[in-house]
Amino acid sequence: MNSKLYTVPIQAGLYQIDDPFWSKKRETVRTQMIPYQWKALNDQIEGAAPSHCIKNFKIAAGLEEGRFEGRVFQDSDVAKWLEAVGYSLSWHKDEDLERTADEVIDIIAAAQQPDGYLDTYYIINGLDKRWTNLMNNHELYCAGHMIEAGIAYYEGTGKRKLLDVVIRLADCIDRTFGPEEGKLHAYPGHEIIEMALVRLYHQTKEKKYLKLAKYFIDERGQEPLYFKQEREKYGNTYYWEDSLFQEQYFQAGKPVREQTEAEGHAVRAVYLYSGMASAAKETGDESLWQACTRLWDNVARKQMYITGAIGSSDYGEAFTFDYDLPNDTAYGETCASIGMIFWARRMLEMEPKREYADVMERALFNTCLSGMSLDGRKFFYVNPLEVNPEACRKDQLKKHVEYERQPWFECACCPPNLARLITSLGSYAVTVNERAMYLHLYVGGRVKNPVNDMVLRIESGLPWNGEVSVTVEECRGESYDLALRMPGWADQASVRLNGEEEPKYVEVDGYIHFQREWRQGDVIKLSFGMPIRVNRANPSVKENIGKVSVSRGPLVYCLEEIDNGKGLHRLSLCMDQEIEVLPGTIAEGEIDLKGQGRRLSDEGWNGALYAADVEEVYEEQTLIFVPYYMWNNRGVGEMTVWVGRK
Amino acid sequence: MNSKLYTVPIQAGLYQIDDPFWSKKRETVRTQMIPYQWKALNDQIEGAAPSHCIKNFKIAAGLEEGRFEGRVFQDSDVAKWLEAVGYSLSWHKDEDLERTADEVIDIIAAAQQPDGYLDTYYIINGLDKRWTNLMNNHELYCAGHMIEAGIAYYEGTGKRKLLDVVIRLADCIDRTFGPEEGKLHAYPGHEIIEMALVRLYHQTKEKKYLKLAKYFIDERGQEPLYFKQEREKYGNTYYWEDSLFQEQYFQAGKPVREQTEAEGHAVRAVYLYSGMASAAKETGDESLWQACTRLWDNVARKQMYITGAIGSSDYGEAFTFDYDLPNDTAYGETCASIGMIFWARRMLEMEPKREYADVMERALFNTCLSGMSLDGRKFFYVNPLEVNPEACRKDQLKKHVEYERQPWFECACCPPNLARLITSLGSYAVTVNERAMYLHLYVGGRVKNPVNDMVLRIESGLPWNGEVSVTVEECRGESYDLALRMPGWADQASVRLNGEEEPKYVEVDGYIHFQREWRQGDVIKLSFGMPIRVNRANPSVKENIGKVSVSRGPLVYCLEEIDNGKGLHRLSLCMDQEIEVLPGTIAEGEIDLKGQGRRLSDEGWNGALYAADVEEVYEEQTLIFVPYYMWNNRGVGEMTVWVGRK
Repeated sequence: MNSKLYTVPIQAGLYQIDDPFWSKKRETVRTQMIPYQWKALNDQIEGAAPSHCIKNFKIAAGLEEGRFEGRVFQDSDVAKWLEAVGYSLSWHKDEDLERTADEVIDIIAAAQQPDGYLDTYYIINGLDKRWTNLMNNHELYCAGHMIEAGIAYYEGTGKRKLLDVVIRLADCIDRTFGPEEGKLHAYPGHEIIEMALVRLYHQTKEKKYLKLAKYFIDERGQEPLYFKQEREKYGNTYYWEDSLFQEQYFQAGKPVREQTEAEGHAVRAVYLYSGMASAAKETGDESLWQACTRLWDNVARKQMYITGAIGSSDYGEAFTFDYDLPNDTAYGETCASIGMIFWARRMLEMEPKREYADVMERALFNTCLSGMSLDGRKFFYVNPLEVNPEACRKDQLKKHVEYERQPWFECACCPPNLARLITSLGSYAVTVNERAMYLHLYVGGRVKNPVNDMVLRIESGLPWNGEVSVTVEECRGESYDLALRMPGWADQASVRLNGEEEPKYVEVDGYIHFQREWRQGDVIKLSFGMPIRVNRANPSVKENIGKVSVSRGPLVYCLEEIDNGKGLHRLSLCMDQEIEVLPGTIAEGEIDLKGQGRRLSDEGWNGALYAADVEEVYEEQTLIFVPYYMWNNRGVGEMTVWVGRK
Repeated sequence: MNSKLYTVPIQAGLYQIDDPFWSKKRETVRTQMIPYQWKALNDQIEGAAPSHCIKNFKIAAGLEEGRFEGRVFQDSDVAKWLEAVGYSLSWHKDEDLERTADEVIDIIAAAQQPDGYLDTYYIINGLDKRWTNLMNNHELYCAGHMIEAGIAYYEGTGKRKLLDVVIRLADCIDRTFGPEEGKLHAYPGHEIIEMALVRLYHQTKEKKYLKLAKYFIDERGQEPLYFKQEREKYGNTYYWEDSLFQEQYFQAGKPVREQTEAEGHAVRAVYLYSGMASAAKETGDESLWQACTRLWDNVARKQMYITGAIGSSDYGEAFTFDYDLPNDTAYGETCASIGMIFWARRMLEMEPKREYADVMERALFNTCLSGMSLDGRKFFYVNPLEVNPEACRKDQLKKHVEYERQPWFECACCPPNLARLITSLGSYAVTVNERAMYLHLYVGGRVKNPVNDMVLRIESGLPWNGEVSVTVEECRGESYDLALRMPGWADQASVRLNGEEEPKYVEVDGYIHFQREWRQGDVIKLSFGMPIRVNRANPSVKENIGKVSVSRGPLVYCLEEIDNGKGLHRLSLCMDQEIEVLPGTIAEGEIDLKGQGRRLSDEGWNGALYAADVEEVYEEQTLIFVPYYMWNNRGVGEMTVWVGRK
């Protein structure tokens, strides 16, 4: 590890996004999703199952009477909402929204116990039961989300109340868990607190939080297995008795450093790996970092869909095994790809390599954006690469595959996660240290480097065109590195500095480094071109043998029934003909692709199911590809990312 | 319907099988499976979960003390065993076995209640509860199996005791169910009694059994739905609440004449359809027959694997929808293909069309035979067309897919069903009526026509060679039809009668009819040739796009890892080269096939998962195909029926 390269992310509020593509997404989140979720949290959405989330906190605070209702992790919904609100307020002041959030924070603070404990499920149902079902009951998960919220809200508003709440909560957890005698030698069933505690350490500079995060990571999966002991002691239900992955569902079957393949619940896994990368960076723990890179290689090179989706199995929302990437039964939870982005940024903080940013961009532009409809009102939880609505309706194996986005209230987990990702997008786009600023994603706007107050104005045509400019608006004239990522898909990029066509730079791991004394008005112009790529999958991926997937820039494309007719499996793309660019009609700026192809016809079959003497007959057909993330914005129909080829 | 064509099957004992292929299978059943199952029924197999089956009958008969143990349909295990024993005794006398069976029958008779009721679950647990959970509790299913056993044992031994037991049982059921007021307007959750009652009608000539069978069929799925009413009345658990198929799991969501697609549990479905075909034949009910042919067309032309396997989904062991025939998650229960054979024979009785016999033969030689290992000691319940053992171990979606046959005791349903099929094979090979004898399958041996005492000696090289001869050994010199099936796969057959190369015959629906006054020594010789076919699937089957499956005669072939290496999905068959015949090494007489192919290599990939710039590199490879039914007789490994093509 070369600690000199370590970078840190910037606060979301330091990146004033102004981008033809992303501003709209962000506004959708701010004006649609955040208010809608507020209603959901308060059971004000007609026809929706009540969330009971705010009510649980009021009951826990003694402000109302009643029972705890909702899932055992219901508290995390308000935490995710507050986190998104915090980010949103950091770049868009809104007094009404802030007042509402402050009121919620008052209730949360009132619900907190004198010792700092905070989880409404146990506060309402009996504190004597707390910490007795870490495997299933998400106390530390809710705490992790609340810590993220406390920090985000402080960053966005400067108000400490929730931050102080989560500090007390973290202190309570620190008094409860650890290697010392008398403490619980345990760890959470659903990870997230690890990365949250590292962030709290950053915020407070209190080493104990980092130590606690590291403890949770190191203790995980050590023999005797804690969850097993816990089950024996408290009789907790073990849902995975009949499963193939057993304790690895929680990544808790063996120590993290012995885990070489991503296993179990995908969201939990990548949240854990994010925490591991954060802890490795802060502690300089080489073996932990090795575990991170091993797991990264496994996921990114053997268990990830071309859309950046991960977790191929519905059962356990889990990873399966290397190269097992079925398209039509894919799970690919939106949250898992969001977690992949969390993890990628933390890997980038350690080691600025293009590969991490490429995956981050892939997950962001494809699976994450696919997670929401263009109007921000409907959501995918599951992100398949091939859909036949009839199969989803008639085959139980594909029942989990959604062929239509669902309204928010039916799935409480992915939409708020999208909200907190998109409202904090700036903190994924760049990371900085004393010597350099790395631009990982090109998002239009104005970003202020907290290290040296340098201000850059970025303009970007992505994902529709590859023209990017980075202008120095403010600087101190000191020597400093600007490191710009050359995306893996941009193989014919041109670079200009102040108009100079062959400027001096050094390329390291996919980043071009300009080291100079910057002056106001300096401009770097990148022109990536937008090559259309016809991708193949590694021959070990049996599902994609004989198939190709078309992409342009960061966007993966797909075929939809509405453009190409029923029976997409019958289509194949002619490889010897050019694919053309076509203005799209689904959304502003959209670019579709048009290829020559053919369709396998029924001619000669006469209703037979098998035959040795029927010649295959094909009909010429133009194939229209649309960006994957836009699918199902024009009604229900078949879709496929991978298509046959001729 | 042309009732003049109706035929009836012959008793198993009238077909003295002497065939290089089938004699061995039959002996395996007689000498291995029947004794083994007897031990299983008596809990004498070390390491196996106790069956408790015989014990349940002893307790019900008051001969022992104890509780009912085992599944609610445990009684059917002894019934299936007795049925197979009955058939076996019809062609191979065995005093010890017969004495053992007689003793079991004494116990069964002693357990029967004064009113004829017979089901040990309710006799032991309380007769007041009987007939209160027809949906789940299999009373009528067990009765159906016992009726089949009573008839088979009578046919095999001439002993009436069990036949009289089942007649009393059928009378009890007849007093309980029917359209009359005061009777239950209901039907079974698991079908089989329908076809059993028609067979009992044949045996006894008592019309009431036919009427009752027809009642069960006609009442099925009528509104108000009986199982729903039953659930409301008795609170019975409904396992399919969360399913896509609901009451159609039992084929009980709508009247059978409105069922146009095979739905729900595949074994139940084809048992029902078998009963429907039997009842349609006996009653001349045209609309019922239409329903049979519609359902047949749906299954055989849209929902059947090339191996004759049916029921593509593990969930509910069920049919899904047209052309949904995934290879690697296939269920294809052995019992379902056995049921397909029951159904096909009954369709043939109505209408001797090659199509029915082709399917019968396909299911028999492929999925049914695949159901048992060559030594008769291990069994497949599930019959996938593509297996990767790693996937079965690591992906819950494929957990049901067996990559290794299991010892008998782990699955109590398919092995005894195989035993009763194989011991009665003769009754599937021919059917007869006053005017004609139809030879559907060519099984070597001597068969006596009960209509006219004509005796034929048949010699057959199937499935390894296509030489068949049919010699008249005894006859009365009357004019009579011999109708011989020309299999769908035999497109270049030659036919000779007493050496004459172009004998006179009429071909109708795939059967060649010789009508003449037969003389002793007349010989028909058929030479089918054994064309090797490279089959394609209908373009609507998305799983098989770009793939082929090789067959020779009735046998479907497959690739195994042991012959072709790991990663079978990387292989493709060169279509422009001859496939050669090769002596096999797994079993005597076996013929393997050798084709030229190629293997997609890893060259150029360097561990990448997706790439646009890697050219596909292939290596030449000889492909060795072995008969599908023989797979997994040489250890664990990958297998595939469908292979890519070049």
